[in-house]
Amino acid sequence: MRQIASPLFQRGLLRNTTQCVETLSRLGFAGSSVVLITDETVAHLHANILYAQWKKHHLPIQMISIPSGEQTKTRAMKEQLEDALFAAHMGRDSVLIAMGGGVILDLVGFVASTYCRGIGLVLIPTTLLAMCDASIGGKTGVNVPGAKNRIGTFYPADGVWIDPEVLTTLPVCHLKEGLVEMIKHGLVADCLAYRFIEEHIEKILQLDPAYLDPALQQSIAIKQRIVEEDPEEAGVRAVLNFGHTVGHAIEAESGYTISHGRAVAIGLAVEARLSREHAGLPEHDVERIDRMLGRLEFVNDVMHLTVKSLINAMQSDKKNRHGRIHCVLLEAIGKPKYVDQCFTHALSSQELEVGMRRWLHEE
Amino acid sequence: MRQIASPLFQRGLLRNTTQCVETLSRLGFAGSSVVLITDETVAHLHANILYAQWKKHHLPIQMISIPSGEQTKTRAMKEQLEDALFAAHMGRDSVLIAMGGGVILDLVGFVASTYCRGIGLVLIPTTLLAMCDASIGGKTGVNVPGAKNRIGTFYPADGVWIDPEVLTTLPVCHLKEGLVEMIKHGLVADCLAYRFIEEHIEKILQLDPAYLDPALQQSIAIKQRIVEEDPEEAGVRAVLNFGHTVGHAIEAESGYTISHGRAVAIGLAVEARLSREHAGLPEHDVERIDRMLGRLEFVNDVMHLTVKSLINAMQSDKKNRHGRIHCVLLEAIGKPKYVDQCFTHALSSQELEVGMRRWLHEE
Repeated sequence: MRQIASPLFQRGLLRNTTQCVETLSRLGFAGSSVVLITDETVAHLHANILYAQWKKHHLPIQMISIPSGEQTKTRAMKEQLEDALFAAHMGRDSVLIAMGGGVILDLVGFVASTYCRGIGLVLIPTTLLAMCDASIGGKTGVNVPGAKNRIGTFYPADGVWIDPEVLTTLPVCHLKEGLVEMIKHGLVADCLAYRFIEEHIEKILQLDPAYLDPALQQSIAIKQRIVEEDPEEAGVRAVLNFGHTVGHAIEAESGYTISHGRAVAIGLAVEARLSREHAGLPEHDVERIDRMLGRLEFVNDVMHLTVKSLINAMQSDKKNRHGRIHCVLLEAIGKPKYVDQCFTHALSSQELEVGMRRWLHEE
Repeated sequence: MRQIASPLFQRGLLRNTTQCVETLSRLGFAGSSVVLITDETVAHLHANILYAQWKKHHLPIQMISIPSGEQTKTRAMKEQLEDALFAAHMGRDSVLIAMGGGVILDLVGFVASTYCRGIGLVLIPTTLLAMCDASIGGKTGVNVPGAKNRIGTFYPADGVWIDPEVLTTLPVCHLKEGLVEMIKHGLVADCLAYRFIEEHIEKILQLDPAYLDPALQQSIAIKQRIVEEDPEEAGVRAVLNFGHTVGHAIEAESGYTISHGRAVAIGLAVEARLSREHAGLPEHDVERIDRMLGRLEFVNDVMHLTVKSLINAMQSDKKNRHGRIHCVLLEAIGKPKYVDQCFTHALSSQELEVGMRRWLHEE
């Protein structure tokens, strides 16, 4: 099993070309062929500059830029990248640097994990969401019609470089996507981390380093700790799916017109209600969660989805066991329910339906 | 990292349905959905019977049969199998049973390793080659045009069931394919194992259990020991590539009209000569190797390939480092050369060319 590397968190890292090249060398990639893979948006904002700087430092680097967006996260695009690597004679000792959001990180990670049965991989997340989620813990994957990340691997990167300076170009709606995940990390693992976000959410959204950096670092640390304990989701890692059973169904049923963050925000609210019913999460905690999510000011845009269609979508959730839908439930903020050595709990369609209707009603 | 399971070697295992079902249960797959994947040839000879028997034992099993042959080992076929699993609502707790030769084992292993980021996998090899090679050690993969196994994973099976009884239906040319690999195992790791095959090769080819079973078991044990020591080919596992630098090039350059076994047999002979030149393998060992390979009576059918085209093909070998072709070399039968903590050794195109011309000349 590849080791799960500790992320390197450093403001200004990407401006420091010498340090980047040295770090790459320390990871064991001195002399390796490097391919920087990014999407067109990130190429324009950050990657072109990086590429030019690194090339000046005589790094044997090539760059591939693919179209932006979730629709590129497919087996066909993986194949296209593989063919490009093969055409460029990339061997087993080459290294891919993925620069972008979760789509690029998941896709390129998957490519790296199966090319020559696994080559070098460095991740440079450029969104808040990717910094605290996709870049940590080695999940890679692509979507198939009707199911996100259905095909993929566990393949921790050799290095993860997080430079929050790149976030200045990120639209605020994307910042919110990341905040949802950071809120979730607090909810499932650390009530103090949750409180920190609660108290400083405005400053964080304004990218004030004094609040953004510690919030981000604590969120990364939570995820890092959980995935180190359970790299292949055999146990505690399942708690990270809080909000995602419902969230994924909303994304899928909307045909991915509703963003991941928005879908998970609803998922958190619904699963908070399921937690109240089935795990004793106190009412005032449900209210705290609602208030926090309310401050993200997502537009409520799910009314066209039916509860029945969502439950139907949940039937194909990867967490399901023996055909039953499983959810993570909270006993309190920071404390997931753990019964029978398991962090996920089977719920009937009816119980899920009640939870969703309650949320619709209470919203 | 998934554990590398010890293979279950048992004559008559596949006739004993109760034991098969119980073994599956002991592996943790009681109640799991099972998909038996095979090819049309093996379906006809063995898998249809197995499927019917297991179904009678109320195993929740489905069967998928794909066309036979190396040309099915593609990303497109992987995608087709994934879509079939997805359509059948296979979840993370399902298990694939691959029954067939190396093509089926590698392909289905790769599918299992990336479906829901990894599901259960049991391998039932039905060729001698697959019993002592593809089923042991967790390498999975598919071919891309011009390169075998270029895309794949390390994903050891949960169980490997070896029942040599199925070999009775195997054409003798396929038995020879397996024997080449068994000979190689002796060459790189165990001179006594090599001698056993040398002394009893006729009896082994006649499938006499008194000779076949110990020869096969010692070969499996050699491979098992090596892959346990080095699951992801960071060190000693490289010795298993003896004969394969040249062998893979011959396969590729022939457009895969020359079989793997035949190609590796030539590879062993050529690399024995390279070993004589560059690692001090004694002349009488080269002669022993020639005599052994001669007894397999392969038809000499490589004359249309040019040495230059083969060296060109080796340029894209996965073992290459920093653009140089690497080979395993023997100091003696059973003793690979180990220098600078490395079992593969860079050779120049010219050195390779000399080795190949020597072999052509001496043949």
